[in-house]
Amino acid sequence: MENGAKKWGFQAKKGQNPTAAAAAISVRGVLNRLAENLNKEDKRQVIPLAHGDPSVFPCFRTTPVADEAIVDAVRSAKYNHYAPTVGLLPARRAVADYLNRDLPYKLSADDVFLTLGCVQAIEIVIAALARPSANILLPRPCFPHYDARSAYSCLEVRYFDLLPEKGWEADLEAVEALADENTVAMVIINPGNPTGSVYSYQHLEKVAETARKLGIMVISDEVYDHLTFGSAPFVPMGVFASTVPVLTLGSISKRWIVPGWRMGWLVTNDPNGILQDSGVVDSIKNCLNISSDPPTFIQAALPQLIENTKGDFFSKIINILREAAAICYGKIQDIPCITCPSKPEGSMFVMVKLNLSLLEGIEDDLDFCLKLAKEESVMVLPGITVGMKNWLRITFAIEPSALEVGLERLKVFNERHAKKQ
Amino acid sequence: MENGAKKWGFQAKKGQNPTAAAAAISVRGVLNRLAENLNKEDKRQVIPLAHGDPSVFPCFRTTPVADEAIVDAVRSAKYNHYAPTVGLLPARRAVADYLNRDLPYKLSADDVFLTLGCVQAIEIVIAALARPSANILLPRPCFPHYDARSAYSCLEVRYFDLLPEKGWEADLEAVEALADENTVAMVIINPGNPTGSVYSYQHLEKVAETARKLGIMVISDEVYDHLTFGSAPFVPMGVFASTVPVLTLGSISKRWIVPGWRMGWLVTNDPNGILQDSGVVDSIKNCLNISSDPPTFIQAALPQLIENTKGDFFSKIINILREAAAICYGKIQDIPCITCPSKPEGSMFVMVKLNLSLLEGIEDDLDFCLKLAKEESVMVLPGITVGMKNWLRITFAIEPSALEVGLERLKVFNERHAKKQ
Repeated sequence: MENGAKKWGFQAKKGQNPTAAAAAISVRGVLNRLAENLNKEDKRQVIPLAHGDPSVFPCFRTTPVADEAIVDAVRSAKYNHYAPTVGLLPARRAVADYLNRDLPYKLSADDVFLTLGCVQAIEIVIAALARPSANILLPRPCFPHYDARSAYSCLEVRYFDLLPEKGWEADLEAVEALADENTVAMVIINPGNPTGSVYSYQHLEKVAETARKLGIMVISDEVYDHLTFGSAPFVPMGVFASTVPVLTLGSISKRWIVPGWRMGWLVTNDPNGILQDSGVVDSIKNCLNISSDPPTFIQAALPQLIENTKGDFFSKIINILREAAAICYGKIQDIPCITCPSKPEGSMFVMVKLNLSLLEGIEDDLDFCLKLAKEESVMVLPGITVGMKNWLRITFAIEPSALEVGLERLKVFNERHAKKQ
Repeated sequence: MENGAKKWGFQAKKGQNPTAAAAAISVRGVLNRLAENLNKEDKRQVIPLAHGDPSVFPCFRTTPVADEAIVDAVRSAKYNHYAPTVGLLPARRAVADYLNRDLPYKLSADDVFLTLGCVQAIEIVIAALARPSANILLPRPCFPHYDARSAYSCLEVRYFDLLPEKGWEADLEAVEALADENTVAMVIINPGNPTGSVYSYQHLEKVAETARKLGIMVISDEVYDHLTFGSAPFVPMGVFASTVPVLTLGSISKRWIVPGWRMGWLVTNDPNGILQDSGVVDSIKNCLNISSDPPTFIQAALPQLIENTKGDFFSKIINILREAAAICYGKIQDIPCITCPSKPEGSMFVMVKLNLSLLEGIEDDLDFCLKLAKEESVMVLPGITVGMKNWLRITFAIEPSALEVGLERLKVFNERHAKKQ
């Protein structure tokens, strides 16, 4: 090297940085690859069916109540300071009150820890539970941030299947077979990402009983809480907290359609004090001590935002999602190369199985999505990202007219690549 | 266990979760301990000399320009969506332009990665550089988040001293002795936290030459950029980027007095493309793919906030800091048990040495701070938190009248605990 410098010591060595593998399967990493593959010459609107963020569409505009809560907090000038590591007390209390509407017992503010969206809640939980030789049970398919953060924290992952033919219920026999004395938790995501399922009271009760029998906690990702539009109502896992300790993860991102605000929570449903006594709560607090917080004024806006949002805002969003899910499910029937085993009843997604034998020149789900982005300016998430090779995750949570356009292009893509009979 | 549950598998085992040790020495962890030790019966104002956050004092109120930039971004309803993992392009460009004012070459928007305050910039850098057997050189004393995140990412830490008698300059002979072929970087914090030092052009040039000779990059933490009030002006390390690659960390937290807004950056000063070619930039992007972002509307507010803030706001803040630093340095001379080797010229802190031989019944710096909190409702950071046992870090960045009260109480505390002659 010129000028007397030695070889630079920070040269990356392939495979040595643990974040590379994790990032490769992250939704965001894959979205970046799809975006790079878009054809800039194509002047048509890009149809984003790959991620759960409809906020750019006018019909999914958040309530002005939410905006004004932020404006009031900023202008008060009272919230420019660092927040306490666990979150501002009034905001913690507001989240507890919000969740208590659906629980048979009362959470207190002390049970609530505020996080940077649900994503950081996942990071904190995984880091708090990691220890040498411990393992965690994840569903397959799963939101891949659980995999990524477990890899990052050296927490072993074991997968139990979700069963498409049973409305994506958890295979609890597999859970029992996988667990051992080093298993710390099982994860459920309800309403389902990527599955669009909504679990019944009965299934959640069985999950609780299974976890209790195994001596593991349940981590319940409820970031899509209350976004249900089928026959099953949303039931929080915390309802079963007297059976088994439950960590609930959530945020305002999806129900208020403000994912970019990064305001979430991690809640201990622990009426018997098991998480407290076992040191899990202390471990969560330790992790929060060495992590960033949600901006203080956004925390401060939470009580006003939750209190003042009217039911008609929520109903309007649910009605659009119901309409969009129906359009999506209907249009999918017209596209031969994909099949949908289970009609979505919640969240913003549906999983469809790709039949590659009907297509020519398409290697796998990733190849399908990359070519679809290039040829049709439609973004769809390859199933491999959520642990299901040769499936696709399709978001229906966009403006219904754009959704129709996107699925029409998917159909055209299918026809163009159909195997000649 | 009753009702057929086995022993819970997630029972924490002491010392097994790597975050516990890291949290114990975090500023936030120690602040929590001090706060718990305050005497609730004491009705006097708590004087916060332990952390770098003067935002609650009216004289340190941020400019309304900053508030309005946020208000405009929220009300536009254009920034409720997830941000790109690297940050919004106009915000990245605004930060590049801001830093370019002081650089001999031009950063581009692509060199800027937006982070949740400077704290997350530290997390990303450490995670991006970690690999088996690698090591990093940290100053002693140091902002302890570097230690905590290195422990968390299993990156070996080696310490070089800062020399109090030389204005806390880095001991570059020690740097040369510590580095080996697995050393990836050295960290400097300028203006200094916890030291209050401001490095000269000449010293920074020597840092650059030393790092180049060793083949390591320089991580320059400039979160207190431009907060200087002595004879030395602020010089960004990026000035020397043609000698050695520099990662600059910064934020709006300190200069705009909005630490609770969590808006920071990580910048590659890499005119020769060394960080790009060596894979460090890709590694940073991978880490960003699996991390949370700053809220999108706060990113969106950055261009307006930076553009519209007038010089008189900055001068007002500097004038208060200069006055406060002078009060602090003067008052310290009247307190026998502490001595200050180097008058602060920047940042918000001064390091003082504790002379325990003059005190009775005080074990060490932590004991001193816990008792001071209890007896006098004054919070001061024990030096052990920043790697200097039996030193103290005192923040002077509070309203000057409150600072005088706090240091007066420190004097009274000293008198009460003075060893009888």
